[in-house]
Amino acid sequence: MNNLSALQALFQKEIDQLNLGTAPSKLYDPMHYIMGLGGKRLRPILALMGAGIYGDPKKAMPQAMAIELFHNFSLIHDDIMDEAPLRRGQTTVHKKWDQNVGILSGDGMLVKAYQYVANCESSLLPEVLATFSQTALEVCEGQQMDMDFETMDKVEAATYIQMIQYKTSVLLGCSMKVGALVGGASKDDAAALYDFALLLGTSFQIKDDYLDVYGDPEKFGKQVGGDILSNKKTLLWIEAQRRAVEQGVDFEKYASLPADEAKVTAFQQLYKDLGVDVYAKSQIDSYYEQSLEALGKVDVADEKLRPLREFAQWLYSRES
Amino acid sequence: MNNLSALQALFQKEIDQLNLGTAPSKLYDPMHYIMGLGGKRLRPILALMGAGIYGDPKKAMPQAMAIELFHNFSLIHDDIMDEAPLRRGQTTVHKKWDQNVGILSGDGMLVKAYQYVANCESSLLPEVLATFSQTALEVCEGQQMDMDFETMDKVEAATYIQMIQYKTSVLLGCSMKVGALVGGASKDDAAALYDFALLLGTSFQIKDDYLDVYGDPEKFGKQVGGDILSNKKTLLWIEAQRRAVEQGVDFEKYASLPADEAKVTAFQQLYKDLGVDVYAKSQIDSYYEQSLEALGKVDVADEKLRPLREFAQWLYSRES
Repeated sequence: MNNLSALQALFQKEIDQLNLGTAPSKLYDPMHYIMGLGGKRLRPILALMGAGIYGDPKKAMPQAMAIELFHNFSLIHDDIMDEAPLRRGQTTVHKKWDQNVGILSGDGMLVKAYQYVANCESSLLPEVLATFSQTALEVCEGQQMDMDFETMDKVEAATYIQMIQYKTSVLLGCSMKVGALVGGASKDDAAALYDFALLLGTSFQIKDDYLDVYGDPEKFGKQVGGDILSNKKTLLWIEAQRRAVEQGVDFEKYASLPADEAKVTAFQQLYKDLGVDVYAKSQIDSYYEQSLEALGKVDVADEKLRPLREFAQWLYSRES
Repeated sequence: MNNLSALQALFQKEIDQLNLGTAPSKLYDPMHYIMGLGGKRLRPILALMGAGIYGDPKKAMPQAMAIELFHNFSLIHDDIMDEAPLRRGQTTVHKKWDQNVGILSGDGMLVKAYQYVANCESSLLPEVLATFSQTALEVCEGQQMDMDFETMDKVEAATYIQMIQYKTSVLLGCSMKVGALVGGASKDDAAALYDFALLLGTSFQIKDDYLDVYGDPEKFGKQVGGDILSNKKTLLWIEAQRRAVEQGVDFEKYASLPADEAKVTAFQQLYKDLGVDVYAKSQIDSYYEQSLEALGKVDVADEKLRPLREFAQWLYSRES
């Protein structure tokens, strides 16, 4: 994974030098704070890799930064909506400052993201901008769908997949596509690369649901069973609920168990009994394979796509 | 003011047909709700007038809509920050739905604004976009400055003017400039028109402070003295505070009066005693005159600028 680490280091250097503004400090300090909290930097890496297929990855650095800014804007606002006290183990912006600071610095970051994304050859600007705005809107739609799900009794698996794609995967697709366009990709290549990242992201998100149930506590990083304890409608939950009805299992009895270790164990077993663990794995694999198929449609020498195959493999095998 | 009413009607027709999206409804319904609340539509009118100098005002319709969308996005988020229950006499978005809906639909509106503003000839896109983003960022800075002022003991008049310019006037300048650019203005014309609207907006905002103190209750529309009752740092307040120190008047005694009718009367008199009423009027006039000077630098037949002179005159003479 040399390429990945090299690009991560390259991007980290940009983060270290990032200067979005200084005054008023309550507007700009939170932006630098959250951008400095780290994370896998998957999105900017994809943008750089997209350009790297066709030439110098650095060509897409403004777009990589734009997408990381957008991602972090959405984290600030999501954390307010979820009343989350922690983000990446650190205090969230609205807790460290206050809610108004979180709302406004998030707004400012979204504008900053547009400034960065627009920093490309003007001939590419309409396409880059249209992709970015369409994606940004889908991310908002995904977040609203996610909030709507909380009060719904039942969600269809297909609707759930659309939600995670909107909320998360489309931004991976956008990173990849915009990076590729800036690097010089044809429209067809850019579209195939979008699909690759979208589908890989979908696999990644379902794996997230899976690891919450069956992850290795020593490797997972988060509390295993967190979704179960909060009755979160993950893909496993949704499919188990559906199968339970078919098989006459009283799902509500499980859902209403007190939120402790025994509930997690009960659900781990229930999911196995209903075959939902196998179902989730097959979905993870299916989206992963579809993503590689999409990658195969990119019209460049196979060698050029090796970093992306390695990236996909790395993400697929992750345990945290 | 035929031209003004004609453009208002033209824009209203666009609002009536506005379709920003449908699902999820909690994302899109609030956008249509707030866009339907009315208002003077000063910003879109300026954009249309900007294009109208050079040809068909309708050419700038997408940009006029973009700026009205941006304005309303900022109103939704400001109302959350200010915990305001009412906007234009109607329930605010975060009260009618909830705070999360307000945050997210506001975010979505900002993205929608970018989609609309980018709907222009691609050769103009870089300049239009740069102007819009710079303005958007200044509006965020102005809002943060305004919030910072609340907890500051003392604010300089010049800093206050910068705040109102950022929070309000730059968006008028942006409307004017973007409309003009889309209509075919030279860069010099666009810059002069920006200055015209910025300075006119500054005069307009100071007049707002003035009318709050000395407005005719039957015409003003809002409660006269509202700023006084909430100890709001308006230009009159700031200048009175400064002059009071110079003249050995105990300003704090006035500031700490109970919030009732007597306090309003006391301040009306205090401002007169300190000459702050005259000072405010001279500032209103000065910015108004400067705006007309800027307008004089636009390199077109004087006849073409008549609607703008009428608009400025109308705004200058307003009593509400």
